[in-house]
Amino acid sequence: MSQQTAPAAPATPELYAEIQDFYARHMHLIDAGQVDAWVETFTEDATISNNVNPRPAHGREEIVGVIRRAQQQLDADGVRHRHWMGMLVVDRVDERTVRAQSYAMLLAVRLGEAPVLDRSTRCHDELVRVDGDWQIRSRRVHHDGRP
Amino acid sequence: MSQQTAPAAPATPELYAEIQDFYARHMHLIDAGQVDAWVETFTEDATISNNVNPRPAHGREEIVGVIRRAQQQLDADGVRHRHWMGMLVVDRVDERTVRAQSYAMLLAVRLGEAPVLDRSTRCHDELVRVDGDWQIRSRRVHHDGRP
Amino acid sequence: MSQQTAPAAPATPELYAEIQDFYARHMHLIDAGQVDAWVETFTEDATISNNVNPRPAHGREEIVGVIRRAQQQLDADGVRHRHWMGMLVVDRVDERTVRAQSYAMLLAVRLGEAPVLDRSTRCHDELVRVDGDWQIRSRRVHHDGRP
Repeated sequence: MSQQTAPAAPATPELYAEIQDFYARHMHLIDAGQVDAWVETFTEDATISNNVNPRPAHGREEIVGVIRRAQQQLDADGVRHRHWMGMLVVDRVDERTVRAQSYAMLLAVRLGEAPVLDRSTRCHDELVRVDGDWQIRSRRVHHDGRP
Repeated sequence: MSQQTAPAAPATPELYAEIQDFYARHMHLIDAGQVDAWVETFTEDATISNNVNPRPAHGREEIVGVIRRAQQQLDADGVRHRHWMGMLVVDRVDERTVRAQSYAMLLAVRLGEAPVLDRSTRCHDELVRVDGDWQIRSRRVHHDGRP
Repeated sequence: MSQQTAPAAPATPELYAEIQDFYARHMHLIDAGQVDAWVETFTEDATISNNVNPRPAHGREEIVGVIRRAQQQLDADGVRHRHWMGMLVVDRVDERTVRAQSYAMLLAVRLGEAPVLDRSTRCHDELVRVDGDWQIRSRRVHHDGRP
């Protein structure tokens, strides 16, 4: 039985707040361009997939490569991103595994302009506890409005 | 003394996280079109009212009818909704009753287009504990920008 | 050693939820125009600074003055604001001091129009516990898209 289908129970309130805090730190790191610290919120063998790109990214090195190219493009375009996560649902699979479903929206900001609502997504993550911290082992992103 | 005016105390942190989790599941259900599961997050005799429609909806059957018609219109228009709840304030009335005030914003997404900020509302809910779960007994929605 | 650089540890889940509740109440007050109640969520000697105005505001009286002028302008323009705080990171400095980093976005609503995403900011607050409640002692706001 894979972790995606393993039975799970709603998180305790303590775990719920802990996972909220995890995502807030995770989003601050990526938006601040701290890619090396951000990728450490994933496991070494993490997978990220979405409904827009045909090929998932596997492992920290590949994930960092994808993100650095995206950030270079943002820098060239003079755009800053702000990732908002919300509507978080946390299910506990076992002592060291949780599944988290959330919405994420992406605000894009250009110098001197009002922020733009760039993207709406749904996110399915599996997180595992490693050395006392949470890390994302698997992330599936669905970009709304895309087939 | 009605529940709306009964004295209340700020929720404990545990209750606060519990209610956040409730709303996240509630919003995922409606946005996924799972109306039958969604309406079970209301009591049998729940009331929903707002400042735009003159007549409140009473009871699960009537609420489901309103929502199904709205969703048929969305399907016809090719629009998906994402409801975000935020700025949640929770007050505990008694062991099985809470009042929750929140903001909600509605993103509308069409295929191939950027999401649109469709609506901003404030929401006053009364929730009661039924068989270990929370259910909404009364919801008053104020659509911002409407008289 | 200033409070801004004092060592800090991630908040417990209980403290995290408590601070979320604090910010929700804080935002409801300002958006409802309850300036006198809102300013009591700051310490008497609070400081607010940002990257747009050269001069910080010091103390409740000055803060109230700035806000009242802003609200008179909003009233004249027929605009209502909705402040959303999100991506909250809370660090505990000591028993009565926390640092909170968050994103805030500002929705502006005019009668009969769809809401507009007016502003994206990052917020660094220092909060202290006074008589059992939290109060903001220092707030630094960075308006995204502004130099």
